[in-house]
Amino acid sequence: MPVLTFDQLADVCAEIMEAAGAPKQQAHVVGIHLAQSNLYGVDSHGVQNLPVYIRLIREGRINPRSEWSVVRESPSTALIDASWGIGQVSAEAAMKLAIEKGAATGIGAVGLRNSNHVGRLGHYTELAAQAGMIGVAYVNTDPTVAPWGGTKPRLGTNPVSYAMPVPGGHPILVDFASSVVAEGKVRAALARGERIPEGWIVDKDGRPSTDPADLYAPSSPSNPLSIVGALLPAGGYKGYGLAIVSDVLGGALTGWRCSVDVESGNGALFQAIDIESFSSRSEYDNRVRKLIADIKSSPTAPGFKEVLVPGEPEFRTAEQRKPGIPIPETTWSQIRTVGESLNVRDLPAA
Amino acid sequence: MPVLTFDQLADVCAEIMEAAGAPKQQAHVVGIHLAQSNLYGVDSHGVQNLPVYIRLIREGRINPRSEWSVVRESPSTALIDASWGIGQVSAEAAMKLAIEKGAATGIGAVGLRNSNHVGRLGHYTELAAQAGMIGVAYVNTDPTVAPWGGTKPRLGTNPVSYAMPVPGGHPILVDFASSVVAEGKVRAALARGERIPEGWIVDKDGRPSTDPADLYAPSSPSNPLSIVGALLPAGGYKGYGLAIVSDVLGGALTGWRCSVDVESGNGALFQAIDIESFSSRSEYDNRVRKLIADIKSSPTAPGFKEVLVPGEPEFRTAEQRKPGIPIPETTWSQIRTVGESLNVRDLPAA
Repeated sequence: MPVLTFDQLADVCAEIMEAAGAPKQQAHVVGIHLAQSNLYGVDSHGVQNLPVYIRLIREGRINPRSEWSVVRESPSTALIDASWGIGQVSAEAAMKLAIEKGAATGIGAVGLRNSNHVGRLGHYTELAAQAGMIGVAYVNTDPTVAPWGGTKPRLGTNPVSYAMPVPGGHPILVDFASSVVAEGKVRAALARGERIPEGWIVDKDGRPSTDPADLYAPSSPSNPLSIVGALLPAGGYKGYGLAIVSDVLGGALTGWRCSVDVESGNGALFQAIDIESFSSRSEYDNRVRKLIADIKSSPTAPGFKEVLVPGEPEFRTAEQRKPGIPIPETTWSQIRTVGESLNVRDLPAA
Repeated sequence: MPVLTFDQLADVCAEIMEAAGAPKQQAHVVGIHLAQSNLYGVDSHGVQNLPVYIRLIREGRINPRSEWSVVRESPSTALIDASWGIGQVSAEAAMKLAIEKGAATGIGAVGLRNSNHVGRLGHYTELAAQAGMIGVAYVNTDPTVAPWGGTKPRLGTNPVSYAMPVPGGHPILVDFASSVVAEGKVRAALARGERIPEGWIVDKDGRPSTDPADLYAPSSPSNPLSIVGALLPAGGYKGYGLAIVSDVLGGALTGWRCSVDVESGNGALFQAIDIESFSSRSEYDNRVRKLIADIKSSPTAPGFKEVLVPGEPEFRTAEQRKPGIPIPETTWSQIRTVGESLNVRDLPAA
């Protein structure tokens, strides 16, 4: 399997994005975002998305030179229209504006609409934590998830993310889909020819199934996977409730659209909460330090070697992958092909 | 079973709270809160708590004449110290201040510390929705829930709530504990001599159990139920993540304490988001109206007669209970006893 450093991966992606028409700085933002997802072990949101982005640019759905703009603003809030530019660029701008407003007024909240795929949500909440603030993000996306008590897709996997600064360490990083699993995990099981656990999906007739093929219509190379079953919400009515929250905050509050009407892209709401507007940083730090120690002191359940706080798996993977990030052969070959089609030929030996 | 109207229930509770030392207006707030929980069918947060509150007043843990105060403030945020007064009074004040700040700056966020039991969380987010805003609430509470991968209580059932206005109708009202179930449901199963489903609890040795007695130490009348096992988080690491979010926002951000160190009471963070700071109210209304119609148009899963949106069960129960709210005989008798001990004898015939 090809192994590349973070810098190599980020540079390759940036170079290809630039060759596809993105301004240098925007191409760089995408490169960093994708490479960091792989570094953290979240490969679903990593460089395997680059060929998809290039296809969307060619189809005219991503306009790599389009500029986002603030279309509404108040002391603590703003609404950004991404004008179908590069998702990561407008989402970073939205969180950075939320951080700026939060620093000025105690809390900032910035909505985002008409945005292409923003990628890994934890990336943005971590930006807030790096600025010493608590980051919050809600995102909606295209429909694949049944409502609680229903059987047909009416909501997206609509995720939420929170990042909370930790003194002298990585933030506590919560980042999850409101469905039991992301659709990509069902697709991966299908590719491996494995069954999936009960409770993940229902088939086209609304029946529970452990066969990943039941989520999809029969496919062919010219007719890629389309969903006829539905994913189920995490924790029943709880994940269902969260999916609606992300849909209303990301899709309705922003004047964009809710999941059912989403073909591609995301609506989002980002928040940055200023800690010292509430209490002293040292009080906060002491409480969070103790919370982590208390949690980690719990005896472990069968099958667990230790109790981890949210985000710890990602930050540990990043440490392990510092010397090099393994990229599946097929992904690397797709990137090479898409690079060659744009006359980017000097890819690093991997 | 005694049946009382909403007004009767609210008045009885207010009268008893006043007799226990609460100022008239504060006693009224508690009465409305408890009666409304029963009206909505959330009996766990209803009038059965009144005898508990009176006991806490007698033990000096609730000071019914204590006044909350704003101890820190910025344009969009504030921190309220409840000074161990009546929880509902300070929590209502916190959400109302968040609404005021949200109306002025686009989003308001108010923390609450040193607060007694705030009761049903949806009560506060619904206040924001009634003001035409989106309400958000995070609360932490005493430890009963194991972390993901652990077996001992390190977190509370730390709930979240969201209320989103709906044109011409009740809001979408999301209000749930981050644990699989509230502890009260295990206690209720124990009282009925029933088993509980797998995945709700582990026993004192960290083993999964379907016997509700395994959550508790052996009890006697002089030694009421104390927890030796643990509840499990909803949806595994997802509910675990949310529990930490509510703990950090309600317990650490407010300079109070996290669940492990909570003996009784709550820390909380309330938000109010102004819709028109983001988009026009009519755009929002159209999207939310369509979202609800789309969700309800899904075919139903086995065992469901229709697909409901969050909050709909509560608002339907309220409609059914308009003529009268059934109160269990034991609860009513406890209220009567506590009333008599405070010379409140003119309780309505029920």
